[in-house]
Amino acid sequence: MKRRIDLLITPRWVVPVEPAGITLENHAVAVDAGLILAVLPLDEARLRYEAGTTVELPQHVLIPGLVNLHAHAAMNLMRGIADDLPLMRWLQEAIWPAESRHVSAAFVRDGTLLAAAEMLGGGITTCNDMYFYPDAAAEAFATAGMRAVVGLTVLEFPTPWASDADDYLRKGLTVRDAWRGHPGISFSLAPHAPYTVSDATFQRVRALADELDLPIHTHVHETVTEIREAIAEHGMRPLARLARLGVLGENLIAVHAVHLDDTDIELLAHHGCSVAHCPTSNMKLGSGIAPATRLLSAGIRLGLGSDGAASNNRIDLFQEMRHAALLAKASTLDASALPAHTALHMATLGGARALGLDDRIGSISPGKSADLCAVDLGGPFSQPCFDPVSHLVYVAGREHVTHVWVNGESRVAKGVSLLQINDKELLRIASLWHTRLAN
Amino acid sequence: MKRRIDLLITPRWVVPVEPAGITLENHAVAVDAGLILAVLPLDEARLRYEAGTTVELPQHVLIPGLVNLHAHAAMNLMRGIADDLPLMRWLQEAIWPAESRHVSAAFVRDGTLLAAAEMLGGGITTCNDMYFYPDAAAEAFATAGMRAVVGLTVLEFPTPWASDADDYLRKGLTVRDAWRGHPGISFSLAPHAPYTVSDATFQRVRALADELDLPIHTHVHETVTEIREAIAEHGMRPLARLARLGVLGENLIAVHAVHLDDTDIELLAHHGCSVAHCPTSNMKLGSGIAPATRLLSAGIRLGLGSDGAASNNRIDLFQEMRHAALLAKASTLDASALPAHTALHMATLGGARALGLDDRIGSISPGKSADLCAVDLGGPFSQPCFDPVSHLVYVAGREHVTHVWVNGESRVAKGVSLLQINDKELLRIASLWHTRLAN
Repeated sequence: MKRRIDLLITPRWVVPVEPAGITLENHAVAVDAGLILAVLPLDEARLRYEAGTTVELPQHVLIPGLVNLHAHAAMNLMRGIADDLPLMRWLQEAIWPAESRHVSAAFVRDGTLLAAAEMLGGGITTCNDMYFYPDAAAEAFATAGMRAVVGLTVLEFPTPWASDADDYLRKGLTVRDAWRGHPGISFSLAPHAPYTVSDATFQRVRALADELDLPIHTHVHETVTEIREAIAEHGMRPLARLARLGVLGENLIAVHAVHLDDTDIELLAHHGCSVAHCPTSNMKLGSGIAPATRLLSAGIRLGLGSDGAASNNRIDLFQEMRHAALLAKASTLDASALPAHTALHMATLGGARALGLDDRIGSISPGKSADLCAVDLGGPFSQPCFDPVSHLVYVAGREHVTHVWVNGESRVAKGVSLLQINDKELLRIASLWHTRLAN
Repeated sequence: MKRRIDLLITPRWVVPVEPAGITLENHAVAVDAGLILAVLPLDEARLRYEAGTTVELPQHVLIPGLVNLHAHAAMNLMRGIADDLPLMRWLQEAIWPAESRHVSAAFVRDGTLLAAAEMLGGGITTCNDMYFYPDAAAEAFATAGMRAVVGLTVLEFPTPWASDADDYLRKGLTVRDAWRGHPGISFSLAPHAPYTVSDATFQRVRALADELDLPIHTHVHETVTEIREAIAEHGMRPLARLARLGVLGENLIAVHAVHLDDTDIELLAHHGCSVAHCPTSNMKLGSGIAPATRLLSAGIRLGLGSDGAASNNRIDLFQEMRHAALLAKASTLDASALPAHTALHMATLGGARALGLDDRIGSISPGKSADLCAVDLGGPFSQPCFDPVSHLVYVAGREHVTHVWVNGESRVAKGVSLLQINDKELLRIASLWHTRLAN
């Protein structure tokens, strides 16, 4: 007697990510009630299960849904608004004025919807986000049917969303209360950066994070200037200051971490922090190249982030995997640095662990949520294929993603988006804001 | 009375590359007898011409066909055969043994066909190639209907193609004679590298290049090891040696040029050499990051190359444009380094000038061949678009190429390849060689 299940996926290859380094052939993934039930030989799967839906993927590799460990999703509305400018001119002349004039709940909802559609289309099923109006962001992620950790941003200065640190925290925690119990949406505390947040606020964030069991999501050591100015103002490097304030810990996600000396790396390792590596954004803004291989050697958890569309300009973890692997090789002059399996691990389980969600996502493991992504490696420009994991990182792109599931629910099938919001509506939204921002 | 012409293309934007830095709206490109007749306002075009075919591209940018300034096209058959290995293990354990066992005229014809299809699909209309069996390569490029400068490789040691430098040159020049007068196929002399070619051979290459008016295409200063060993063997850096041998000149295309001191750059500038910048290959093999902005400041002509599919692993100049721009910013810590227009110039007119073909290709200019590429920027993941050139480099990918023309002839239309060789046949070829190489 066969067991009835919702879904059986039969790809050419399964790369479960856990156990590490393996690629399965002639295997199937059984899904029921939103969860991965089993990863098992195809013959056995056919004997054991009667699936409501069977998806045959004869030239595809099935991987865990990708985890974008750092995004400002709503900034999709400012994609390419100011490129090829030095960082401070980019911020002061383009980004900050546009934000202060345009950012609102509607802006965040619309921009986040566009980003969620872009992410799901490229196999990203979880996003660790940081922006304003977290209620609007959560609503957009929920509408798109995507998993998200929404950052409750904290700054000392006013923006359209809040007036000071107390106001940011109060409003943010109210939003969190309103979304309690939602299966796909959770929250982090997101003090923006050491140079925009005071000692007292960081200490309050740490206390709240411990009390409420929330991750802390913050930018740190992005540029040389940031570190130089921190030494001038606080007499120490930003990570040393965060350590002194008790902010470093296993629930801290340090974003960028480009400029690190040995002591900085020891601090991150000692406190069990995670790093969100954003190689494309770091290149595009002229920030530099993060020492990914040194961080890995120190045993630090690494995930990959796209950053926002104004500094990337593509919310695409296939690109980030490739750039992480290539930059590590270029900067160490070692072609064996950060191999393809490591890049894939960073984009999946690494990100999941950083978020404390690795009991639910990040690998194709029985009992985890069925957040899955299928990539077609059968086209002529992907031939020959000696190793599908190598091809995922060095050959394929998000244009080869054909199927995406979140919690066992289909979001993309045969390359076609199944979102409630169709492309025409997305284009209408983008056009509306484009007109406003261009004026 | 309207003039009858073959083709009128009416895109949303035209980026002619020459004059530099401009983007035209409401313009059309008129094509007749394979040549660009005019770039003119749309209203005027409709009054003046009666086109056999009109191609309306309401959300596309039209750019010159891309010029791949360094490829080993046949190596498409070895895509991803050995990744994440240090350079010498990669060469000695994977590439060279596979080549000595498998390379033949049939291998080169089939591999070059696959690469030509990949290149045309991604908007590349001209390829500067270097491999063995130049007759087979030329045949494949001609079959695909792509423009190519086929390198006549010269080495001191035997390969399946030839036995010694004399044999390489003799066989190569015979191939050149056989293809004389072909409108799309020309040749270069391609001494492999300073570490594989003797002084006497380099001098012979220089004399032949002058006599026959051919470009010289050679790898140089790719790795630190190459330079260290050259100093040990010749008492000088490779570029100094090539200068002493008289090899440097306006027809020299120096490939890679990663590790350059001020004297090296002065030598390249003084002799009017061109550089084929291959940012992805340089990263993937752990060679390093070429000083593109210093080369540009010195007035050196720069083009972009993909290198072979075994070291990239994607023959994609959109990727190379992005990597050139991003790496320049990351390595100089200056976000304004190598802006998008410069990257596009390198991928088009820069490559054309290096090949001495800029009277015929490289820009959308009246009188040049109609080698053109249309890119669709209208999809939701490309929104908003404030600057189409920025989007070409930082947002779009070759997956957005919809139309490609070579000499006014359509090679890709609405994203569909029009090559004589269809995808099924390409997959059959790839599968055949995959099986052989995997054994």
